[in-house]
Amino acid sequence: MKVASIGLGLIGGSFALSLKKNFAEIQLYGMDKNPKHLQKALELNIIDQALSDEDLIEMDLVVVSIPVDKANSVILDVLDKVHPKALVMDMGSTKGKLCKAIAEHPKRDQFLAAHPIAGTEFSGPEAAFSLLFEKKTMIFCDVEASRPELLDLALSLIAPLEMSIKYMGAEDHDKHLAYVSHLSHISSFMLGKTVLQVEQNDKTIFDLAGSGFASTVRLAKSNPVTWTAIFKENQEEVVRALEEYIHNLQAFKGQLEQSHYSEINQQLQEVNNLTPILNGILKKESHGN
Amino acid sequence: MKVASIGLGLIGGSFALSLKKNFAEIQLYGMDKNPKHLQKALELNIIDQALSDEDLIEMDLVVVSIPVDKANSVILDVLDKVHPKALVMDMGSTKGKLCKAIAEHPKRDQFLAAHPIAGTEFSGPEAAFSLLFEKKTMIFCDVEASRPELLDLALSLIAPLEMSIKYMGAEDHDKHLAYVSHLSHISSFMLGKTVLQVEQNDKTIFDLAGSGFASTVRLAKSNPVTWTAIFKENQEEVVRALEEYIHNLQAFKGQLEQSHYSEINQQLQEVNNLTPILNGILKKESHGN
Repeated sequence: MKVASIGLGLIGGSFALSLKKNFAEIQLYGMDKNPKHLQKALELNIIDQALSDEDLIEMDLVVVSIPVDKANSVILDVLDKVHPKALVMDMGSTKGKLCKAIAEHPKRDQFLAAHPIAGTEFSGPEAAFSLLFEKKTMIFCDVEASRPELLDLALSLIAPLEMSIKYMGAEDHDKHLAYVSHLSHISSFMLGKTVLQVEQNDKTIFDLAGSGFASTVRLAKSNPVTWTAIFKENQEEVVRALEEYIHNLQAFKGQLEQSHYSEINQQLQEVNNLTPILNGILKKESHGN
Repeated sequence: MKVASIGLGLIGGSFALSLKKNFAEIQLYGMDKNPKHLQKALELNIIDQALSDEDLIEMDLVVVSIPVDKANSVILDVLDKVHPKALVMDMGSTKGKLCKAIAEHPKRDQFLAAHPIAGTEFSGPEAAFSLLFEKKTMIFCDVEASRPELLDLALSLIAPLEMSIKYMGAEDHDKHLAYVSHLSHISSFMLGKTVLQVEQNDKTIFDLAGSGFASTVRLAKSNPVTWTAIFKENQEEVVRALEEYIHNLQAFKGQLEQSHYSEINQQLQEVNNLTPILNGILKKESHGN
């Protein structure tokens, strides 16, 4: 079986490594816009050989893991070129615009929109590891548009990873992810920005900040190119989530200015209700890392 | 040597445990507004006996670790009652109002304002552990107002914890902490609130959220009473920090609405500069937990 990985960063690299580990017979081809990533992926044995455009017709599976604002055109091009029995999957964090862009392609049923809920704040092939996806959630979007035997193929290839599989509509996916993932990244990046503006002396941040600060701004280490693309592709939903977040912060500021402390306390108590969910997520995550 | 711990939660309990571990001759007395905390602290051998008001005159050291909005009056009362050679320390997260409130007390020089930069999202005596403060930062505020030999006593008692000691003015302390600690907690609580408002079905959050979300809202598990008190005591600085944070979020939303993606990317790149500081904090924290 021949598999091509287009995009050899954290996600593409980790998926390639898991396939190589679990399926000895798979031959892995790879492509990356960044020639250093390609070289590194070859050195680290993430892939067996570089992929050329001419190789595409021979692939049984093409996995696209690149910034989401570049994915639409690459996937359309790949669909044009692949064998009529091949599966094309993407691993991006947004799905709405992509699924619309490819809706009318004659090979639409060879495409499967996938989003593994897994990642770290690191990027590039050096950050990839074969267990990144193990026991995490995999979301497949709009599967009714994909050929059933190709969905089965995808399921069989990720079976060794023991992922929890969820099926959602692409629009619905983007709406939920705006809240539980994209908004977190913005809150973290902007918190980092606010602190950097005030604490011009880095040493002060280092000396005074504890694990709480480090935890809330951990995502500010994330890859700017990856995340600018996500915010762009999910612009409408992200703006809406951001509006609600800003509204809540302004209301909190108002309560503080008016010394409404019992309301503030009540509100924090209600948010504490997240605790069991968070403990569950952390437990789930600890399986994979 | 006799030490009293007023407040037997995470901070007071952990400091008591470290004293008992490192100084066998110390007798530990304890007091807590919550009778269950007192009982638990006795059961867990965090303290040797309950503290009565009459015992106060015999204490060599009184450590106050209670919600910061209650600390001012308790400390004034304790200063009234302690022996003229005793040291009184507080461990709270805000210092400005407190140092003002006690400035004219005749025993002001027996008081030392301390803030250990250490904590977890858990609370109560069960959450206490003797190594909480190990290798963390300890801030002493306005030390010029404290009797030098009493500062030396405090330093000798925390010496086994190998803490990094910083000296700051109380006002300056509150200004910096508003940014590197208090704002993080608000951003986390409000992120949790925003997601809970939209995702009425908890299962969706659980299924779709990854470690990124868990990390940014970890602080939303923090104790509402402790944190309402901190926001109250540091109201002015917290409101200012919150205004700047909201301003940055609004500017980001504007860039997103106007599709200024290269500006967004540039901005995220600049925030990435925090990475070495964050890695340093995480390394520092990992010593103690």
